[in-house]
Amino acid sequence: MTRSLGGLLFRGVHSLTSLPARSTQLGHLSACSAVKTMVTLPSFLSSKPRDFSLPNPSWGSEMLRLYEHYSSQCEVETEGGEKDRGLWTRLPSYNRSLKYVTGGFYLSKIIQAKARLFTRNIREEGAGFEYVVFVNKKEKRVVCIFQAGHLLEGPPGCVHGGAIATMIDTVTGTHASVVSGPVMTANLNMNYRSPIPLGNTVLIESSVDSREGRKMFISCKVTSSDGSKLHTDATALFLSVNFSHLVKGG
Amino acid sequence: MTRSLGGLLFRGVHSLTSLPARSTQLGHLSACSAVKTMVTLPSFLSSKPRDFSLPNPSWGSEMLRLYEHYSSQCEVETEGGEKDRGLWTRLPSYNRSLKYVTGGFYLSKIIQAKARLFTRNIREEGAGFEYVVFVNKKEKRVVCIFQAGHLLEGPPGCVHGGAIATMIDTVTGTHASVVSGPVMTANLNMNYRSPIPLGNTVLIESSVDSREGRKMFISCKVTSSDGSKLHTDATALFLSVNFSHLVKGG
Repeated sequence: MTRSLGGLLFRGVHSLTSLPARSTQLGHLSACSAVKTMVTLPSFLSSKPRDFSLPNPSWGSEMLRLYEHYSSQCEVETEGGEKDRGLWTRLPSYNRSLKYVTGGFYLSKIIQAKARLFTRNIREEGAGFEYVVFVNKKEKRVVCIFQAGHLLEGPPGCVHGGAIATMIDTVTGTHASVVSGPVMTANLNMNYRSPIPLGNTVLIESSVDSREGRKMFISCKVTSSDGSKLHTDATALFLSVNFSHLVKGG
Repeated sequence: MTRSLGGLLFRGVHSLTSLPARSTQLGHLSACSAVKTMVTLPSFLSSKPRDFSLPNPSWGSEMLRLYEHYSSQCEVETEGGEKDRGLWTRLPSYNRSLKYVTGGFYLSKIIQAKARLFTRNIREEGAGFEYVVFVNKKEKRVVCIFQAGHLLEGPPGCVHGGAIATMIDTVTGTHASVVSGPVMTANLNMNYRSPIPLGNTVLIESSVDSREGRKMFISCKVTSSDGSKLHTDATALFLSVNFSHLVKGG
């Protein structure tokens, strides 16, 4: 168990089996407050978790327009309770990857309790990463609509290269996990072509290039929302992993 | 001016000419509050800015030990006011890259006022990126001590690949700008070898591989604090840029 944590398994695991935490608030409390809150709560799952991929008041017109565009082509439930299959599926997004990591004994309980997904760690709506991922299984496409907040600055007035890398890792990792279950990032190779001004909404699209055993090669492009301007292109390599034993009781 | 913003110039500018903002607090106020505060303040530079590269109570023993190790070899001012040159220089770190971007007219004034450097956007000490960069000009080495906070989670209990990419971009970009002035990131290529548990302190070291005209090729390694374990290795390509005209009055 110890060795698996120090080895391959944790390199950059992406999975769709994410468990939601109760709220983002614990991440900003002091260590003592967090512990106290944990004691009084029977479970982090006791109330409905927030799905960060749904619209909020910070979303601009372009973000909303694209959201509506893909949402209108999503699976819907008919009056009879049957599902009318659409081309696309919206993926929900929570602020924690897993609640329990039984192998993670080297992490303090406080860190485990306060840990939050990097892309969902800012409470102020619109300040950080606003994004929603849609999957098209039939056409093997994944698209992400991303509105970059003012706390993501790198070059003056523009999005940090690391924030762009973060979204590319997120989208390609999600794509790989949709195709073959849990994966970890082994390589990311990115060409920065033109900057993304803060506040802009961009499209991030990924496609699977090839698969060789446990390896999956994925390509990705970040473009302006109308697709006319290329901001960044990238390739990513993921390795399939099995981390079911890391979930409590697994 | 307009074209320069849409073109090469802003791809990923790194510069050591950063100007500090007054505080991180505006980034968390509402848009209206931010505007009001701007009117009542004569200047963002009216009070002493915070240098985020100095120790704070969240720093663990390993972070502090390494900080002291490099600090003890830094330039110091002698009693006579002369400087005793050390091997290393600590770089200060603020939460904004530039206060004024005259070409940035497409950004709303609100976004400009609230923008904060991605790596310094979290107010809670120890929750995000805690890091300090030291430069050794004689030996052409740059080293960064990085303590990863609990809000940087990717894989369960470990640092997000995008957060690692962010630090690699920061360190290699700083190195390139130390050598040749303002640069922008053109390529980042990273191999994720083993995960970094949340809360751990790691070393990020970079070295210049070669220079060809405006291009600079840099290598980078992220290792455990004792250097024994390789977490990530990377190469980066930077292009020299001139963005003095973007500074107000420039």
